[in-house]
Order: sequence, then structure tokens, then C-alpha cells
Amino acid sequence: MNTKTLETYLQEKSALIEETLDAYLPQATETPKTIHEAMRYSVLGGGKRIRPVLTLAVSELFGGFEEEAIIPACAVELIHSYSLIHDDLPVMDNDDTRRGKASCHKKFGDAIALLAGDALLTHAFQLLATVKNPEKSKRFAEVLAKAAGTEGMIGGQVLDLEAATKDFDLLKLDEVTLRKTARLIEVSSLLGAISAGVDETTERSISRFGRYLGIAFQVMDDIIDRDGYLRLMTSDEAKNKAAVLIQKAKEELSPLGGAREMLNLISEAILNRKR
Amino acid sequence: MNTKTLETYLQEKSALIEETLDAYLPQATETPKTIHEAMRYSVLGGGKRIRPVLTLAVSELFGGFEEEAIIPACAVELIHSYSLIHDDLPVMDNDDTRRGKASCHKKFGDAIALLAGDALLTHAFQLLATVKNPEKSKRFAEVLAKAAGTEGMIGGQVLDLEAATKDFDLLKLDEVTLRKTARLIEVSSLLGAISAGVDETTERSISRFGRYLGIAFQVMDDIIDRDGYLRLMTSDEAKNKAAVLIQKAKEELSPLGGAREMLNLISEAILNRKR
Repeated sequence: MNTKTLETYLQEKSALIEETLDAYLPQATETPKTIHEAMRYSVLGGGKRIRPVLTLAVSELFGGFEEEAIIPACAVELIHSYSLIHDDLPVMDNDDTRRGKASCHKKFGDAIALLAGDALLTHAFQLLATVKNPEKSKRFAEVLAKAAGTEGMIGGQVLDLEAATKDFDLLKLDEVTLRKTARLIEVSSLLGAISAGVDETTERSISRFGRYLGIAFQVMDDIIDRDGYLRLMTSDEAKNKAAVLIQKAKEELSPLGGAREMLNLISEAILNRKR
Repeated sequence: MNTKTLETYLQEKSALIEETLDAYLPQATETPKTIHEAMRYSVLGGGKRIRPVLTLAVSELFGGFEEEAIIPACAVELIHSYSLIHDDLPVMDNDDTRRGKASCHKKFGDAIALLAGDALLTHAFQLLATVKNPEKSKRFAEVLAKAAGTEGMIGGQVLDLEAATKDFDLLKLDEVTLRKTARLIEVSSLLGAISAGVDETTERSISRFGRYLGIAFQVMDDIIDRDGYLRLMTSDEAKNKAAVLIQKAKEELSPLGGAREMLNLISEAILNRKR
């Protein structure tokens, strides 16, 4: 019953996210076509949409308006998409495939992939500038830029590059995970809270919730890919680490009241995911 | 006398811009050091600062506050710097030098250069989110993202990549120049006007002023580098094209009143520049 409810919820939200991204991305008919095709190819029709779903679900918990939360939700997904394109480039991970199809540079060439990533990053902030309420628009840009920059995602990417050539221990891996993966998932949750207009204490709880969720998400990713954390612990130990994090995430929600069942279900789904 | 005045003005403004960029960029001591070093290496201690100077000079013309205009001025310079890092990458122009020193990827490696560009682009929007007035913060982000994205600079970059492999004529070159170079110079001027709080008609005049200036800037660049426009016209014809554009730029200013002498001097300096 709960699984069915979650599945329906995720389907509905994914459809809304897809539709909104489709509408806000430049059309493939606009000049220069190549880059617009590359941007749409990399963003549309794939991905679990975990980040924008979190933004919507957190906003919903606090009674926010979905038509407002959808903008930062899509902006964070554009940031995620750009980071995947640049990560896949030959100069980084050199991945030929992404989400079961050719990676952006394999399909469009390295130069267009580089520029498509740049354009999606730029477009994320252009999208946030369309938010009607100027205070919220500014706040969204502030927290998203911080989470995506060298304090967050890009910083994690650099630490990851450096870690590959140096000793590798749990402390370093936790730091890489926190920045490279968890900060963007954290900010996805925070954007939903800001959109709904909660107080600062609640913002902080929601940030911690997102951070725990984000680290757990990466640990589960590593279990599925037999990488990262599995180089330092057994699969059972990793699963236990993820379970503890999800428990902590849910504890952050419990004093907040409201209909938090959906966020609990999403949290549990992260722990139980097989792909 | 005028030349001396302009020289002093440019020195003063460049010093302020350098100081502000230095303060707003992450310090090289912050982790991860490598990328912060790469960001600072590429932004500080070089460049003509034509874009941020324009923002400051336009704001000044309309009686705006310099301490407000300096933020969008520095944001536009960060966007310019990121674009140079990515342009220099082996996958794009493969340039080993920039401003008389090793290009970012030659000094820090391709991966760090890619991420340093991403980080500067992100940082530009983070900087705009620090603007106190939320309406202005939002408006700055809106116009800068538009000028830097596929409608503007990135789009011009793509058209340029495509032009290299196709027929090359003046119509196409003008379109590339307009997007790749002129849109960012146009928006530099516009940001100064928005910062000072002018009306919409004046915003449009200032945009046209910046656009003419931007195209003239690129034509002069091509004369200096013996490239681009010099593949389609003689040096004298190109110089004449630039002179006509600078004349048009100055005509946009004349009905605006105010102490526009400095902008006229800057316009003339673009026409007379030797490097």
C-alpha cells in the first residue's frame, strides 16, 4: 500500500518535473540548434529526479505552493545534469555512457558537451531569476550557488580527483561524499523549505535531514556499483551505515509535525533502492 | 589632458576592481586549495577590465553608487574569466598562453581548469546574490545569465565552432561577434544602468551603446591579431567599420545628458587601442 502510494507520488512528480524542464529549456529548433539538442538530450527523459522530488516534497510538507517550488526544483536538476556532463568528459571520468545511452560528449563531441554543461549551469540561475518574489529568488540563488561551488559540489569533485592519487581513508571519503553528493541533495531539501517560507530553525533541521539523506544515497550508490565505500567496508557494514543515516534523517523530521509520511517513504526508498 | 584623465580613471577603477575580486574570491588557503589557486590565478593580476570599468562608468554617469555597481561589475568579470579558461582548453582553442602567462590548464591541468571555470561561473551568481536590494539582485542575475547563455556568449561560441567548419561570410561573422563578444560588453553597460536605477528607455539606449562598443572592440581585436574580420576586409576597412560603430555608440549617449565625457573617452580608447 505504502509502496504503491510512493510509486504513484514519484510518477506524478517526475511527470511534472519533466514537463517543466521541457518548457523551460531552450527548444531544439532555436539557433544554435546543436547545443540546445545537447542540453535537452542530457536533461530530459532520464534520471531518478531525486533532487527535484525532494524540493517538492519538502515544500509540500510545510504547505508551500507546488507552482513556486517547481522552479528551484528544476534549477537544482539542471545543476545536477551539468555536473554529470562535465564529469563524463574525457578529461574527467571519461565515461562513454550515462543512463543507458551515449554520454553527451560521445553523442555531440567534447566541445559541445563542455559548452552544454556551461549552458545548463547558466540556465539554472536564469531560471531562478524568473521567480516572482525577489527575496526568494535571491535566497534560492545564494544557497544553490554555495552548494554547487567550491564549498560544495565542485570542491568535492576536486577532493575526489586528489584522493585518487593519494591515500584513501574513510575520513576523506566521507568529506568527498558530503561535498560532491550530499550538499546538492541537502540544498534540494532546503530550497523546498525556503520556498514554503519556514523559519530558520526549521531550515536548519531540513538541511540536516537532506545532508543525512544525501550521504546515505551515496553509500547505497556505492553498494550498487561495488565502489567507494565498499573499498573500505563490507557491503553489510555499508548498508548499516546507510540505515543509521536514514534513521537520523527521519529523526530530524519527527519534531516538525505535518504530513511527513511521504518524506519518510522517500527516505526508506533510498535505503531500499536496488539501482 | 584627456588621455591623462582617462589613464588615471582606468588605473583607479582597475585597482578597485582588483581589490574587490581579491576579497570576493575564495582565499587560496581554503580547502581545496588547488582550485582556489587556479581561480585566483586566472582572474587576478591581468586583463584590461574593460567590462567592469564600463559597469562602473555607466553607473557613475547616472549618479549610481560605486559600492553597489562594483558587485555586478565583478560578476561580469568572473563570467569573462571563466569563458577564457574554457576557451583555452585543448578541446576548444588549445591555447597554451593567456595574458602573457601559462593558460589555466597548462598550469593546473585540464581537469582543474575545467572545474575552475565552472566554479567562477557559479561564483558570479553567488556574488550577485549578495546584492542587498533583492529586486536588483534578481534583475542582475536575469540579464547576466541571458547574456552569458546560449542566446549570448555560449551561443556565439557554438556558432564560432560551427563556422570554422562551414563557409565563412560577413553575416555569420557579425552574428558570432554579436553573441560571443558584444553581448557580454552590452550587459556590462546595462548592469551599470540597472544599478543606478534608470528608466527602461535609458536601459535600452545603454544596451545599444554597449552593443556597438562590443562589436567595435572585437573588430579592433581582429586588427591587432590579424584574424577574424581581416579575413574578409582590409585593415583600413575594418578600422572604418569600428569607427562607424564607435560613432553610433557615442550618439546613443548624447541625448542622455549627464557627465558622459568619461564614456566617450573610453569609447575612443577602444578605437585607438594597440593591444
